[in-house]
Amino acid sequence: MDLKEKMISSKEIYRGHILDLFVDKVSLPNGKESTREVIRHCKASAVLAMDEEGNIILEEQYRYPFDTILKEIPAGKCDKDEDPKDTALRELEEECGYRANKIEYLGVIYPTVAYTDEKIYIYLATELKKTHQHLDDGESLTYKFIPFKELVRLAKEGEIQDGKTLAAITFYLAKNY
Amino acid sequence: MDLKEKMISSKEIYRGHILDLFVDKVSLPNGKESTREVIRHCKASAVLAMDEEGNIILEEQYRYPFDTILKEIPAGKCDKDEDPKDTALRELEEECGYRANKIEYLGVIYPTVAYTDEKIYIYLATELKKTHQHLDDGESLTYKFIPFKELVRLAKEGEIQDGKTLAAITFYLAKNY
Repeated sequence: MDLKEKMISSKEIYRGHILDLFVDKVSLPNGKESTREVIRHCKASAVLAMDEEGNIILEEQYRYPFDTILKEIPAGKCDKDEDPKDTALRELEEECGYRANKIEYLGVIYPTVAYTDEKIYIYLATELKKTHQHLDDGESLTYKFIPFKELVRLAKEGEIQDGKTLAAITFYLAKNY
Repeated sequence: MDLKEKMISSKEIYRGHILDLFVDKVSLPNGKESTREVIRHCKASAVLAMDEEGNIILEEQYRYPFDTILKEIPAGKCDKDEDPKDTALRELEEECGYRANKIEYLGVIYPTVAYTDEKIYIYLATELKKTHQHLDDGESLTYKFIPFKELVRLAKEGEIQDGKTLAAITFYLAKNY
């Protein structure tokens, strides 16, 4: 079955700081026309940072769209032309003050497949060494180390809602499944 | 530490078919001002539908933002005032032609915490009975049953990128962790 859609035209609605919005006219596989609202966003990385005892870093960060504080693994947008692996290492050090000697790719997540093209690359960082936290201007967060098992328990009990953090758990569990 | 931000003003940039875009002016905990780009989106539901042998339904669906076909569990937007559980049951029947006699809440995922307020409620549906698929106009997808273990293997091998599907795996594994 042909499932593909073809772009006929694309209209830029908004070009912003962290996202751009387009409304595209497309032709459907059945020959009809439709519109697609698409958020274009840069790449991002997230990192499951684990110490030698199997504890991972979990942040608490205020998230404006929900007006609440969420539990998340460290993450951030890739700078232009930055390798996502370098982003993961950079964000871990900036947000939590840890340098990782070892980093392993776990997988990529497409958080919102219906209307954004965002991709988040997820890594496992180990052999951690304490350095210095240096948050961006206006960035506020706290973090602590918790056992990985506790992270899974938090997910089970509805204490973790963040998509990339839930996906990171799957990737880590799948490694040894 | 006070991490909260307060909205000073909100400007509607775009009101669309599946999403609305706002640019808000906010005051940060440190007293400074900043802007927040926020996509407002309705609620949605997704469903891990499992037969008596432990096989689950995995769809293949074209996704315009990536111009590719992705593997996903059945999902869809909640109609106005619709209970997310009813959405899950409705989408399973519309997309795949199965009615579930039993449905259990697994958890909620916030797919993109930085700039959308979307929430996806995830359910486990069992005691499936074949009825009839009835896709929306212009909706094209295929599906098949695969063992849950195969779903985890696909995630491990990078064959599943969809955020809600990866989160559903975590919720299901966490149940018995």
